Amino acid sequence: MKLIKNNLSEKLIINKYFKKLNFKKKGTFDFENDGAYLELRNENYKLTVTTDSISEDIDFFSNDDPKSIAQKITTVNLSDIFAMGALPHSYLLNLHLPNYINENWLKSFSHQLKKIQYKYGFYLLGGDLSKSNKLIVSSTFFGFIKKKIKIYQNKFNLNDDILITGTIGESKMGLEILKKKFSLNPNLNQYFISKYLYPNPCNLGPLISGHINSMKDISDGLIGDLTDMLNNKYGALINVNKIPLSVKTKKILNVKNNYRIDNLINAGDDYGLIIISSQKNRNKIFSIANSNNVKITLIGKIISEKGIHFDSHLDNKNFKKFDHFS
Amino acid sequence: MKLIKNNLSEKLIINKYFKKLNFKKKGTFDFENDGAYLELRNENYKLTVTTDSISEDIDFFSNDDPKSIAQKITTVNLSDIFAMGALPHSYLLNLHLPNYINENWLKSFSHQLKKIQYKYGFYLLGGDLSKSNKLIVSSTFFGFIKKKIKIYQNKFNLNDDILITGTIGESKMGLEILKKKFSLNPNLNQYFISKYLYPNPCNLGPLISGHINSMKDISDGLIGDLTDMLNNKYGALINVNKIPLSVKTKKILNVKNNYRIDNLINAGDDYGLIIISSQKNRNKIFSIANSNNVKITLIGKIISEKGIHFDSHLDNKNFKKFDHFS
Repeated sequence: MKLIKNNLSEKLIINKYFKKLNFKKKGTFDFENDGAYLELRNENYKLTVTTDSISEDIDFFSNDDPKSIAQKITTVNLSDIFAMGALPHSYLLNLHLPNYINENWLKSFSHQLKKIQYKYGFYLLGGDLSKSNKLIVSSTFFGFIKKKIKIYQNKFNLNDDILITGTIGESKMGLEILKKKFSLNPNLNQYFISKYLYPNPCNLGPLISGHINSMKDISDGLIGDLTDMLNNKYGALINVNKIPLSVKTKKILNVKNNYRIDNLINAGDDYGLIIISSQKNRNKIFSIANSNNVKITLIGKIISEKGIHFDSHLDNKNFKKFDHFS
Repeated sequence: MKLIKNNLSEKLIINKYFKKLNFKKKGTFDFENDGAYLELRNENYKLTVTTDSISEDIDFFSNDDPKSIAQKITTVNLSDIFAMGALPHSYLLNLHLPNYINENWLKSFSHQLKKIQYKYGFYLLGGDLSKSNKLIVSSTFFGFIKKKIKIYQNKFNLNDDILITGTIGESKMGLEILKKKFSLNPNLNQYFISKYLYPNPCNLGPLISGHINSMKDISDGLIGDLTDMLNNKYGALINVNKIPLSVKTKKILNVKNNYRIDNLINAGDDYGLIIISSQKNRNKIFSIANSNNVKITLIGKIISEKGIHFDSHLDNKNFKKFDHFS
């Protein structure tokens, strides 16, 4: 992998901060080659590949803690790997670095990567460094999944369950607090901001991959991602009261009259999973989620009428704005 | 693969310009998923992975023909795949697009990619689009190689042959003409500039992979890349008269007194291969190269004295400047 170009400082970056991330795996050539080998597990497995980038001023702020940037680039990619039903294996890193990046930044960034690598069991296979006027971090992740399993994002049947993991909206609340759109007490501000800065992927995907019809992670908000899954073929009927919100989020919604749930389900990087599955597998999926301490909630079902619809128990006018997605 | 984000224009970019590049391969999910599957050939093969980026104002000029940018991003990566002894299989594309990119640009860029994909037999597996103030193109390439073969860049023995494919310096001449450092007649200017704008990888690597000790493509100039290979363990004795130059290049060196060969071997994206191999395999390698119409030249050998040295037939003072590499 071409991590090394012509000047000493790039060699220093690699040797001092990134070599430790290859976990001495043979196929990485200790980052001394222009390429790497990825040894295949065995013929019963296939490789899942996903790639995502995050950019300064779009996905993070230039003065954000490098630990947060490391957390975000790994979570956006791990989240896709898990949503494909796979287990992470290794990754490549393309770093476009502006002049303000110093050794402290690299130390903190690489330290956080190492922590996450240990947590989920994957290593750095290689990468590429270049100069840039804005910080851009691209990453390609590899995961393994059994050959016979294929996870779609848009294949399912009428009346299938729509389930989601985790809660919705905490990351969005954090972003809005950071943007000073509103403020709570210091502890709550800190809580929500950390949900935005340090998102975590949901690793339930590989455990339920044999029991579902479609699965996707929530990276553009519940409504945006569910709309993508429906693919203009079917519709969804959502019970808004069932959309899982944390106790802290519910409190805010109760006290802030001008802050409504439509803000929360309409955008935000929650990184929970949207799962569409046959009703007959519902108990099985709940039981796997429960035994792995993953919160899972049935929020609706697939219907024939296209678009996203909300059940009659609710004040539909709050959700009219979602119609343009359908 | 997350090629699609929230807005129509990105969907349009994917559907109109990039979907045709997936060659309808199943694992791509027609770019409707956040990930892709890479089906493994069979258990006798392993995967080679390489990733490289090119950036506006560093690796190309903003008004360069998009065909040239497509040619460069594929050549830098294909060149690494071939140098690893592998055959290309598929690739991912991370595009960071500034506002000036229009449909004409995308049409021309994707058309050239398709042409190169057909030429070498590989397809687009997925990618990622994002906005940027400068154009940055990153790509990750996948290739297959037999499991038992492992190509190093820095493992060889004393007295091993040093061979290179193609000729040296035409791309560098083109760049210097573009930068108006000198000028020739219009035809020659055009010839060298096109060598810089439209580099081609050398696909000999997989054909000789069983007969060599080390191999690397020339992407930072002959001296820079050979220095990387020597890795401060051995040295190289180079017969400068043997360094292959095209007839056109030789003419320029003869007429331009101030333009010396050290300019050419010291930098430049030639994308030939540097091959280090045992003398006993020399005939075999030459015979494979010849029967595939690849020009190959023996330029020197591995010696114990560290650094790059030039043979006594030549005026050594011209090459003193290279000592700092050793």
